Amino acid sequence: MDELLQSIEQKVRPLIGSGKVADYIPALAKVNPNQFGIAIYSNNGELYHTGQADVEFSIQSISKVFSLTLAMKHYGEDMWQRVGREPSGNPFNSLVQLEYEAGIPRNPFINAGALVVSDMNQSRFATPHYAMREYLRRLSGNENLTSDKVVANSEYEFRARNASMAYLMKAFGNFHNDVEEVLHNYFDNCAMRMNCIDLAKAFSFLANKGYCQHSGEQIISAREAKQVNGLLATSGLYDEAGNFAYRVGLPGKSGVGGGIVAIVPNRFSVCVWSPELNTSGNSLAGIAALEALSDSIGWSVFG
Amino acid sequence: MDELLQSIEQKVRPLIGSGKVADYIPALAKVNPNQFGIAIYSNNGELYHTGQADVEFSIQSISKVFSLTLAMKHYGEDMWQRVGREPSGNPFNSLVQLEYEAGIPRNPFINAGALVVSDMNQSRFATPHYAMREYLRRLSGNENLTSDKVVANSEYEFRARNASMAYLMKAFGNFHNDVEEVLHNYFDNCAMRMNCIDLAKAFSFLANKGYCQHSGEQIISAREAKQVNGLLATSGLYDEAGNFAYRVGLPGKSGVGGGIVAIVPNRFSVCVWSPELNTSGNSLAGIAALEALSDSIGWSVFG
Amino acid sequence: MDELLQSIEQKVRPLIGSGKVADYIPALAKVNPNQFGIAIYSNNGELYHTGQADVEFSIQSISKVFSLTLAMKHYGEDMWQRVGREPSGNPFNSLVQLEYEAGIPRNPFINAGALVVSDMNQSRFATPHYAMREYLRRLSGNENLTSDKVVANSEYEFRARNASMAYLMKAFGNFHNDVEEVLHNYFDNCAMRMNCIDLAKAFSFLANKGYCQHSGEQIISAREAKQVNGLLATSGLYDEAGNFAYRVGLPGKSGVGGGIVAIVPNRFSVCVWSPELNTSGNSLAGIAALEALSDSIGWSVFG
Amino acid sequence: MDELLQSIEQKVRPLIGSGKVADYIPALAKVNPNQFGIAIYSNNGELYHTGQADVEFSIQSISKVFSLTLAMKHYGEDMWQRVGREPSGNPFNSLVQLEYEAGIPRNPFINAGALVVSDMNQSRFATPHYAMREYLRRLSGNENLTSDKVVANSEYEFRARNASMAYLMKAFGNFHNDVEEVLHNYFDNCAMRMNCIDLAKAFSFLANKGYCQHSGEQIISAREAKQVNGLLATSGLYDEAGNFAYRVGLPGKSGVGGGIVAIVPNRFSVCVWSPELNTSGNSLAGIAALEALSDSIGWSVFG
Repeated sequence: MDELLQSIEQKVRPLIGSGKVADYIPALAKVNPNQFGIAIYSNNGELYHTGQADVEFSIQSISKVFSLTLAMKHYGEDMWQRVGREPSGNPFNSLVQLEYEAGIPRNPFINAGALVVSDMNQSRFATPHYAMREYLRRLSGNENLTSDKVVANSEYEFRARNASMAYLMKAFGNFHNDVEEVLHNYFDNCAMRMNCIDLAKAFSFLANKGYCQHSGEQIISAREAKQVNGLLATSGLYDEAGNFAYRVGLPGKSGVGGGIVAIVPNRFSVCVWSPELNTSGNSLAGIAALEALSDSIGWSVFG
Repeated sequence: MDELLQSIEQKVRPLIGSGKVADYIPALAKVNPNQFGIAIYSNNGELYHTGQADVEFSIQSISKVFSLTLAMKHYGEDMWQRVGREPSGNPFNSLVQLEYEAGIPRNPFINAGALVVSDMNQSRFATPHYAMREYLRRLSGNENLTSDKVVANSEYEFRARNASMAYLMKAFGNFHNDVEEVLHNYFDNCAMRMNCIDLAKAFSFLANKGYCQHSGEQIISAREAKQVNGLLATSGLYDEAGNFAYRVGLPGKSGVGGGIVAIVPNRFSVCVWSPELNTSGNSLAGIAALEALSDSIGWSVFG
Repeated sequence: MDELLQSIEQKVRPLIGSGKVADYIPALAKVNPNQFGIAIYSNNGELYHTGQADVEFSIQSISKVFSLTLAMKHYGEDMWQRVGREPSGNPFNSLVQLEYEAGIPRNPFINAGALVVSDMNQSRFATPHYAMREYLRRLSGNENLTSDKVVANSEYEFRARNASMAYLMKAFGNFHNDVEEVLHNYFDNCAMRMNCIDLAKAFSFLANKGYCQHSGEQIISAREAKQVNGLLATSGLYDEAGNFAYRVGLPGKSGVGGGIVAIVPNRFSVCVWSPELNTSGNSLAGIAALEALSDSIGWSVFG
Repeated sequence: MDELLQSIEQKVRPLIGSGKVADYIPALAKVNPNQFGIAIYSNNGELYHTGQADVEFSIQSISKVFSLTLAMKHYGEDMWQRVGREPSGNPFNSLVQLEYEAGIPRNPFINAGALVVSDMNQSRFATPHYAMREYLRRLSGNENLTSDKVVANSEYEFRARNASMAYLMKAFGNFHNDVEEVLHNYFDNCAMRMNCIDLAKAFSFLANKGYCQHSGEQIISAREAKQVNGLLATSGLYDEAGNFAYRVGLPGKSGVGGGIVAIVPNRFSVCVWSPELNTSGNSLAGIAALEALSDSIGWSVFG
């Protein structure tokens, strides 16, 4: 496996230079683009990694999956009254569909959906970001995880579009807490710094019927894990979910920090990272690496 | 397995009466709603079925998958210049997205996408519908398959919305043949009559790395089979792809005739049929049956 | 007045060269761009003109006003069940709004609206185009007016987008006749050839409380004339109605042939023509000429 | 004239009861619906009125015209870089078009447009609302005009949709000041209380080539007055601009407080008020009264 990972790294590193690091906030724009890491964690607890798998990056939208599974514990099936389960067909930060569909976001992985889920968590936790940080430390087994305040503050400063979405949902009655407070917690969660190894371990419960072996906890039920993976497969990669299913064939979630996690149900969780993004906002080298992995070991869940 | 199928039939039959048979054309509206059938075909050639699995019905949109795999042989990757691979997020017969996206339909399983694929086949075959009929007879092993002329003519009579889409794509240069001719072939394909057993067998190549064992043919490559399944998982069930991934967790394709096919990669192909539809246009009892099956034998590809 | 017209011609002729002749069909693209004409017809029967005011051109969308007033005689207020009276806010040939608003076009001056009005006239006249030609000959006092068959056939050949709109309205039940037949009559009407003098005279009834002095006919009632002018003021210039109200301040209607007619209520009808169009599809020199006229003699109805 | 106004009042009062008072904020919902007033002010300084023409009401969106003319003095033609001049074709508070058109609102009379104009005024005045109050006192000749703090606070409390629009424009770079501050000033302006007489006088400059006779000031140029009237004619009545042009034929502006002002260029300014609204958000009895007036004295600018 180590050999395979190294050969994949060699294959995709040349792609670095043809993508573009996220630059909508200064704090993200200054990351060194010339980085690549991958980590694979098996349901038996085996860990494989190569490249900069131990370098922390901003998890950004990957945090949306954790927000969702955290909220599922408190809201169960009721949560689907406030957020849908269908692909959106529109950019991740569009307001058009949100207005046509009366403030109910299409799914929990577009920004509007993640904001509603954050609003739910805001109603349940006294300090939602600390609850999330604690949750991520437990899931990853890394007690030192923290959020990058510079990034979080920068996101907040450039919050206009997310604020617009939150207020639109509030206008439709689908946002219950103070917009500014929820945004602060939302950005703190997005700004969590984790490395590929942390994330591969933190996502292992989705590959393992909801069970996190290193913490010994049943995070969500086996049925819920299967459901979350189904949602990731249809809506986890922004505008590129169909293409990712076509090329890679795994449930996954990407973030503009350049990370992508993918689940091989009942076997592995994977995290790949490289900061340069393609035009859909997904890590260019990351997708190529996952495609190569999928081809090499027949990982696609689709055949 | 036979026992399981019978228990599922008993479980979902009571749902009949709470859906609605498709009535947009008279020829479909008069089907007896009180029918249910299911057939499962394994990669070893074993066949299981129960209920009205041998009663023919109108395959309707299920034909879109066959049109696609037929066109893939002739166009390969080039075909994705003219049709996308992403979920649409809009109703299957909407023109809004088509106009905003310059006449390139989102995927081959919404009507606009299937019309473009039909237009491709029109350019390659002298008599496209007969090519399709021959293809379906080979895939199903049933030499008697025919199209229902009454249904096809009725579809043609009420062709206005499909004609509107075809002309809009023509206005954008993404439709090369005569609109009326393509529509005739498209409706003839939709009006093919097949039963659950026919369809389970005809779809077996998608479960079997592109290989159709009963005809001994490699229909498409293993890689292509995996890709088609990926597209089905993200776009195969109209507005309900996300929900189907959440509840059932299999690549699938539905039709307004009440049929749904699903693929269990490397193991089985399944067809379930019951004419009453839910509000998304998918067989109500059909989805319930697939969910029960998925729960019983852990079929979901997602865990 | 003649002097004023000549000074305006001198002022706007230099603009020729900065616009673009309509080229969506070959038959229109080959017109000599270096032409400009203007004609003013007073309610007293005085005629003033300059430039190529006697050169015929393709009236195109200007015909939509005649179709409307012809239909008003037969349908009266009932016609507003099938077509709205509001500005569209979308390009003249867009389908988006038409789909969202269930096949009811926003107003009679966008293409979809004019097609519905043509469909109404199709239901009332055995030979709708001949009825229109006869109507235009009477209104203009020119017995020799004809339609350009080459242009009409070329429009028909490139009918895809208009056909798409017509079929979409048919799908919503708002189109009663055969699409192809209505399109033929519609394009024959658009292809009518008239010069500035013909059009100034033909529109005089809208400036004169519905009365056409040279034919001695009350074409529509004074109230209806006022109403049609109101609709022209809000929806007569495609995407530029607001700008035209701001700069010129008169009810008007433009066509892609480069003609623009404007009404000075109770005083004059005007037609200006120059083939090059601005980015909104309106005659570039034409709008400039009308603005200069409006400024010179205080014609704006708005102050 | 007094007699005419009384006969019109008698004619339209029975309509009261078939509309609906604005109830999106509690402070507006409690107004007594059984009220009607009208005032006409001539360019000679003659004043005619009947009914509750001296009862103050919340001017709401009518304030958008004053914001515009105030900003025009400071920005001139430059202001049209940040806001368009075309009818929107969408509800006054929609975000869809705003997103498609990169944060440039269609015109200054939909909410988004008025918010941009308020943002411009915020950049020019230390205390924008006090500048507006002073401006309105001068224009109306009524030194006692004030804003209703209860209404303004209630609007602010339910600001979500307006906040959403402002933040969306900020995301596109078309909003320069703090959203909350601009909203406060915007709502204070909307909550100004004026009666029909105040408003007829305050709008007289638009009927009088930009000149306000009772204050002796040239408020804007004659050319600008004509331009503003042109914009009002195409965009002043929300979704009903076309219908208002068809039925009444005057530039006008309505507010959800039930007021409507209309301009008879070079002759009169008019204000009519009755709190119940039609489904487009315009005063039901108000529009009927203006239509009756227009019919009686041939006021339509369109013939």
